[in-house]
Amino acid sequence: MAQRKSLKNDACPMARSLDIVGDQWSLLIIRDAFDGMKRFGEFQQSLGVAKNILADRLKNLVHEGVLDLAPASDGSLYQEYVLTAKGKGLFPVVVGLRHWGEAHLYAKGEPHSVLVERESGKPVPKIALRMRDGQALTPEDTFVKKLPAKKAAAH
Amino acid sequence: MAQRKSLKNDACPMARSLDIVGDQWSLLIIRDAFDGMKRFGEFQQSLGVAKNILADRLKNLVHEGVLDLAPASDGSLYQEYVLTAKGKGLFPVVVGLRHWGEAHLYAKGEPHSVLVERESGKPVPKIALRMRDGQALTPEDTFVKKLPAKKAAAH
Repeated sequence: MAQRKSLKNDACPMARSLDIVGDQWSLLIIRDAFDGMKRFGEFQQSLGVAKNILADRLKNLVHEGVLDLAPASDGSLYQEYVLTAKGKGLFPVVVGLRHWGEAHLYAKGEPHSVLVERESGKPVPKIALRMRDGQALTPEDTFVKKLPAKKAAAH
Repeated sequence: MAQRKSLKNDACPMARSLDIVGDQWSLLIIRDAFDGMKRFGEFQQSLGVAKNILADRLKNLVHEGVLDLAPASDGSLYQEYVLTAKGKGLFPVVVGLRHWGEAHLYAKGEPHSVLVERESGKPVPKIALRMRDGQALTPEDTFVKKLPAKKAAAH
């Protein structure tokens, strides 16, 4: 990603998020971690990605505090990657991307995997954005309040 | 993005979504479109991205039906990029990334832009994922039901 611009110090929180997870592989790794995958080999088999790219993305996600490195749960010498609380905070993003794909990227009747509730076995409800008064929130109901420009000296 | 793998036919809806919006620039363009930007020059000024990359991403987003090309609203010869209904369906993803950034990527008291309700001027509530019974939904409450493997002949 030669042209990648650092958004690390951006005043827009979405831009800062994308500085960390704004690539396909990082988000797919996070998806797989939510799915219970923990080991390098598991991610590699799932994603079919080159080892050096996977290693780079995992290292970055650990560096950014999205994943933690832990000793293997079975006592073996492997290391495991587990989502931190910060990483788990990405669940709405993962669910949002999934639901968008379900709604717009499959032909009618075309099968796809489904995120279901463990207890009921039924699909997780679609994300419903709400206003403070509980009404449905649309993009038109919102605007972004930017940072004020640096104040000029008052004279 | 030399190593980009096509996820176009993936059985996971999140993967298909990332095939379209799984890069930093596409999601920032979509953010800016939600912010009301419509013209090539506006996106370029906002993002500071090379023209060829911006042109490539815009073309792809139009091709994928996320943006529509429309004649300029002021009658000039410019073309404008506007979000389709499909594109507007990404609002929860944009809001989810924003809220994650707000929660995890700023020092205490460090200023950032805020998504507010047009009427009240107050920040949009955080996304609350719910189960079908209305309870809060955590990652642990869910699992992904994969597609069944192709059935073997029954004998």
